[in-house]
Amino acid sequence: MNLPALLDERRARAALSRAVEPGDEHAGRWLHRYGATGFLDRLLHTDGTSPPGTSAGDDPFPGTGHKRVASWRLRATAADPDRDLATIQDLGGRFLIPGDTEWPRQLDDLEDARPIGLWVRGPADLRTWALRSVALVGARACTPYGAHTAGDLATGLPRKGWVVVSGAAYGIDGAAHRGALAADGATVAVLACGVDSPYPRGHDQLIRRITEQGLVVGELPPDSHPTPSRFILRNRVIAALTRGTVVIEAQHRSGSLVTVRAAARLGRHTMGVPGPVTSALSAGVHELLRGEAALVTDADEIVELVGDMGQLAPTRRGPVLPRDLLAPAAAHILEAVPARGPTPTTVIARRAGTTPDETLAKLYELHSLGFVERRGEGWELTRPSASTPNVRRGGP
Amino acid sequence: MNLPALLDERRARAALSRAVEPGDEHAGRWLHRYGATGFLDRLLHTDGTSPPGTSAGDDPFPGTGHKRVASWRLRATAADPDRDLATIQDLGGRFLIPGDTEWPRQLDDLEDARPIGLWVRGPADLRTWALRSVALVGARACTPYGAHTAGDLATGLPRKGWVVVSGAAYGIDGAAHRGALAADGATVAVLACGVDSPYPRGHDQLIRRITEQGLVVGELPPDSHPTPSRFILRNRVIAALTRGTVVIEAQHRSGSLVTVRAAARLGRHTMGVPGPVTSALSAGVHELLRGEAALVTDADEIVELVGDMGQLAPTRRGPVLPRDLLAPAAAHILEAVPARGPTPTTVIARRAGTTPDETLAKLYELHSLGFVERRGEGWELTRPSASTPNVRRGGP
Repeated sequence: MNLPALLDERRARAALSRAVEPGDEHAGRWLHRYGATGFLDRLLHTDGTSPPGTSAGDDPFPGTGHKRVASWRLRATAADPDRDLATIQDLGGRFLIPGDTEWPRQLDDLEDARPIGLWVRGPADLRTWALRSVALVGARACTPYGAHTAGDLATGLPRKGWVVVSGAAYGIDGAAHRGALAADGATVAVLACGVDSPYPRGHDQLIRRITEQGLVVGELPPDSHPTPSRFILRNRVIAALTRGTVVIEAQHRSGSLVTVRAAARLGRHTMGVPGPVTSALSAGVHELLRGEAALVTDADEIVELVGDMGQLAPTRRGPVLPRDLLAPAAAHILEAVPARGPTPTTVIARRAGTTPDETLAKLYELHSLGFVERRGEGWELTRPSASTPNVRRGGP
Repeated sequence: MNLPALLDERRARAALSRAVEPGDEHAGRWLHRYGATGFLDRLLHTDGTSPPGTSAGDDPFPGTGHKRVASWRLRATAADPDRDLATIQDLGGRFLIPGDTEWPRQLDDLEDARPIGLWVRGPADLRTWALRSVALVGARACTPYGAHTAGDLATGLPRKGWVVVSGAAYGIDGAAHRGALAADGATVAVLACGVDSPYPRGHDQLIRRITEQGLVVGELPPDSHPTPSRFILRNRVIAALTRGTVVIEAQHRSGSLVTVRAAARLGRHTMGVPGPVTSALSAGVHELLRGEAALVTDADEIVELVGDMGQLAPTRRGPVLPRDLLAPAAAHILEAVPARGPTPTTVIARRAGTTPDETLAKLYELHSLGFVERRGEGWELTRPSASTPNVRRGGP
């Protein structure tokens, strides 16, 4: 690739997202030390030429195995970030990097395992959505009980203004996304592959629908395929992005438990939905519930737990941002919300002259920011004088 | 009744158990202050005559309402403890009072609500059995899932040397007792009525079987009928008698939750078996599990919790009592256990020349005391040199 072009941070991160496997903490440390352009520069110079500040022959990445460095270098050399950035742009998506307004800052909790960047498709603002999001995860080979429960929670969470995050897999993941979509709710799919080449194939349509109505997100550049380790490392992004993770069904030693343990390490809420003790698919969940995870049985209980955060409480009482600081697209939708509500999404979309999906995405942003409230199936402006107490009955 | 006879503590308590409703803390305070004979004496003299230490006309029970005292007095006057004691003796039972060797001392934790006495039928020693007992409680109108799970736990607990205590009601209680009996296990039914007039009628046979193979216990004298408040107050005895209470199925605001809350107040372990979140009969259990109760899914997990007690740990390594301090009946059974085991209960019974039921009852006592171990379906002598570590894997 063309070296002078690497001076651009976004292009360097796009290249690194192809060179480095997700969650590689070695790479994360060098990235932290040298910055994206410096790290990539160093990587591309070590084929014999001397990178800045070293003499020829010095090990440019002391402490990191040569094999790992060789793999980074091979893939960095083959990377074509301009092509990847053009691909995501052609798809109507974007490549987010730390420092972007839309970058979800809670990912910084992953420290050296923080994604190098995020490839994103969909009309909503990832940062805003992630602020009020919950992960619903669980077994691929779930039972009808698990699928029903996932769908039920995923329908209930958006009604309370919460975004459903999952991994677009078969089973619980799919039921969660579908439940949210069916409730006209906001949902985010975090993939273990390129966002242009969704996996699994049987969820093509579902993932396309999420691209239109929600957000599809991944660390891997276009045309990347999933691998077992990528699935596992994808889970840390789901855990870090959300306020808490709910496991619905999981066998002992299931991959979903990895997500929950990651969430616990990150200080996120961990929750589990109980099931029959006779079901092997609830055994992993019960194991979690015998530890630190909280038992939840409906969306109310999830929201009671994850909603208990100082910085979000004000949104219940009114906007925290001045209206004129809103991004133009969001401000445009806000103007289309009638003074007297509740008003269905479709009516607001018609008034704004845009699509229901884009309208809904912006309404969720506006909700997160405290400008609108959801009531039943419609939306209304938050009353500035409203002081409904945010007190819920505690557990038994 | 004949006053001089009241000098006998047991007869006084038998009379009081008819005069006073279970769990009456007013009566408990007077009983504590004056002793059983003194309390009864005072009660029977206050129809105008002057009890010892008071002048005529003084209120003998200051702070206790006249209506309550009048009810005690009416029923004490009608009581015939000699007849009641003869009835229980004719049934092969006994009336236990505090101070008896067989009195389960953990009932003292109930303080002023401690039972005045316990009417008991069955071949085993209540104190010894109660030391290693767990309550399994739950809904009368349980689901097949609940009945299955109760039966399963009740089969598993005796295999680990634990006694199953329940209330002989329909539903979970019945399934628990039946499970224990089916495993040739030890089980105790705590009734809310006289032990001679079992309730419910549909459990006549079951309760008779428990009388033969286990223990049937109640606070109420012969020929007493259950009332709603007696059911509720019976639950505190179940809670106090056992090391912990497991709720298997319970709706919101169910009576079983009373037992668990009583257990928690008494510092006993409280446990719940999860079920589908779609089942109203698991909702009460899940409510508990969202509080302090521990989630358990099998007998192992129950034993792991309740077995964590210093004073019982030695029983895993060998007897704590010298063999010659054993009661003659227990010593006789111990002599019938072959040096090389395991040996089925029926073989030991034949060697001892007694019934399998009596043999089993004594074997459980001997197990509690550390003299014998259960292995598979048989019994063997505890090896004095055995030092199997009593360490179990902790929770996740």
